[in-house]
Amino acid sequence: MADGRVIEGVYLSEVYDLHELYGHALAPHAGMIRLRHPHEIDNPEEIRFALSWRPAADAFDPYPNLRLAHSIAAGVDSIINCPSLPKDALVARVRDPDQGDMLAGFAAWHVIWHHRNMRHHIVHETKHEWARLIPSTMKPPRETPVGILGFGLMGRAIARAVTALGFPVVAAARTTPRETMPGVRFESAEGAALRVAEQAAILINVLPLTGETRGLLDLDFFNRMPEGAALIQLGRGEHLVEADLLRALDSGRIASASLDVFDVEPLPKEHPFWADERILVTPHQAGDCSPHRMAEQLARAAQAVVAGDTPKTVVDRSNGY
Amino acid sequence: MADGRVIEGVYLSEVYDLHELYGHALAPHAGMIRLRHPHEIDNPEEIRFALSWRPAADAFDPYPNLRLAHSIAAGVDSIINCPSLPKDALVARVRDPDQGDMLAGFAAWHVIWHHRNMRHHIVHETKHEWARLIPSTMKPPRETPVGILGFGLMGRAIARAVTALGFPVVAAARTTPRETMPGVRFESAEGAALRVAEQAAILINVLPLTGETRGLLDLDFFNRMPEGAALIQLGRGEHLVEADLLRALDSGRIASASLDVFDVEPLPKEHPFWADERILVTPHQAGDCSPHRMAEQLARAAQAVVAGDTPKTVVDRSNGY
Repeated sequence: MADGRVIEGVYLSEVYDLHELYGHALAPHAGMIRLRHPHEIDNPEEIRFALSWRPAADAFDPYPNLRLAHSIAAGVDSIINCPSLPKDALVARVRDPDQGDMLAGFAAWHVIWHHRNMRHHIVHETKHEWARLIPSTMKPPRETPVGILGFGLMGRAIARAVTALGFPVVAAARTTPRETMPGVRFESAEGAALRVAEQAAILINVLPLTGETRGLLDLDFFNRMPEGAALIQLGRGEHLVEADLLRALDSGRIASASLDVFDVEPLPKEHPFWADERILVTPHQAGDCSPHRMAEQLARAAQAVVAGDTPKTVVDRSNGY
Repeated sequence: MADGRVIEGVYLSEVYDLHELYGHALAPHAGMIRLRHPHEIDNPEEIRFALSWRPAADAFDPYPNLRLAHSIAAGVDSIINCPSLPKDALVARVRDPDQGDMLAGFAAWHVIWHHRNMRHHIVHETKHEWARLIPSTMKPPRETPVGILGFGLMGRAIARAVTALGFPVVAAARTTPRETMPGVRFESAEGAALRVAEQAAILINVLPLTGETRGLLDLDFFNRMPEGAALIQLGRGEHLVEADLLRALDSGRIASASLDVFDVEPLPKEHPFWADERILVTPHQAGDCSPHRMAEQLARAAQAVVAGDTPKTVVDRSNGY
């Protein structure tokens, strides 16, 4: 930007039209950065950065002078694992101080969705039917324990939101946190997740994906939960054994579920989850970043890279955050 | 109950089948109280109490020994205003310490419904479509002020919930409360509601119905709100000028609304609100009481009346609470 030239960038995604999603938010930065789709680019050597999400394996190949690959969100694994990513390119993520609030609001929404059976109202609204709901099994919030798996920044934000709605929380943490939190009890060490599951009328998963947590949400796990429990799955698709969830729903052990992440994303059109009224499917939307914040951080990172500086939002490529 | 006999009661409602709604919750109290529909009752002089909601004008006439008319909820106006209610009958309401939590959860759910445009996900789920939503206008919670009209017990519970989700709150209170509440600012005295409206991206109404507040939510009011605001109407149907809401939606001033209360309830099948995708209709469900708590309090009140005592849940018939 020293010479005032607009910095050229490219959208690289196999799954989304990033211009459609972010064009509006990027427009205010048009004086600094310009982004185009690969087929619109005549001089690929001018491209200095990419905005990227799940790029194709060879997506980066045409751009010899690309120095920055920027994610649309906090996750960068699909970029780091892309074989064509230049060895010397910096990878940057969005660092959004509002993401905790966003995730907490989304999680709280699903807690109430299950607690108050809001699906009932959506269904009857479609039919123009006034159908008051007095579920004989409904207990007030303070008799409805909410379990949280994972108690990092996101788990904490969710606990704060859910306790403010009157629900007691039991959370699985690797070690019991030093600071107490009103209305929150902890299970820690070996078997903590299962002990949380046993107590949770509504269970929220925000665990990170590790060898230990992959496939954690399976039939054995569900069978430990109270009859008629609800699952809110906001972690990673790989945490859940999808066929086991359907079994647990059929047995009545799990009454209903909200799923925001999946083994295969986008969730294929023929997947049985879509048509199942016990399940609410959302398209990996829980922890959305503000598109404006992403656009600002992208513009700043592109300027830094061109100026020979390291953007503050760069991740360590060896560990991914 | 001194003689161990079951106390006989009757369901009196013109609009609901109270047995269908509450039979399950009442079942555990079958040793103390029995409730039947009027057409099932051969000896009306045995009836000592009614469970009632919007009874017909002559509903109480057949029961000479009825001493207690019990509501299904906190509201008793439809009972007190019933012409056939015996002059000496006690009227009781449900007193539910969980109602604040219930209302707060419901209100918070609608805040997120509008903030995150959850209707989008419901619509696309129906079509089995993975449709990620990156609204270019979405601001994070802390840049999205939520207005609350009415700051009694319910308004306070809502403010606690909504601030925990990261939204700043501006509330209209008759007088500025002495205790501050983190994240909550107040407008008070003349014009407070309008000044809240001017600042609220999402506005929640939980005002009581008075001469001053009847018809408050009219076109002039909506035109003071920020472009594209959302309305969550949980007060009383009479607060809202329904035709003016449709005008404000058509002009874009109001982008979307949640309505739980209406001029006429049940909302008639042909009412335009039902088919309007900008509006979410729920059937007066915000501040639900637990049916179990209602059943317990009914059983206790019936026993007290038969024993010649005054139930704790009785209201003053002259002022209605």
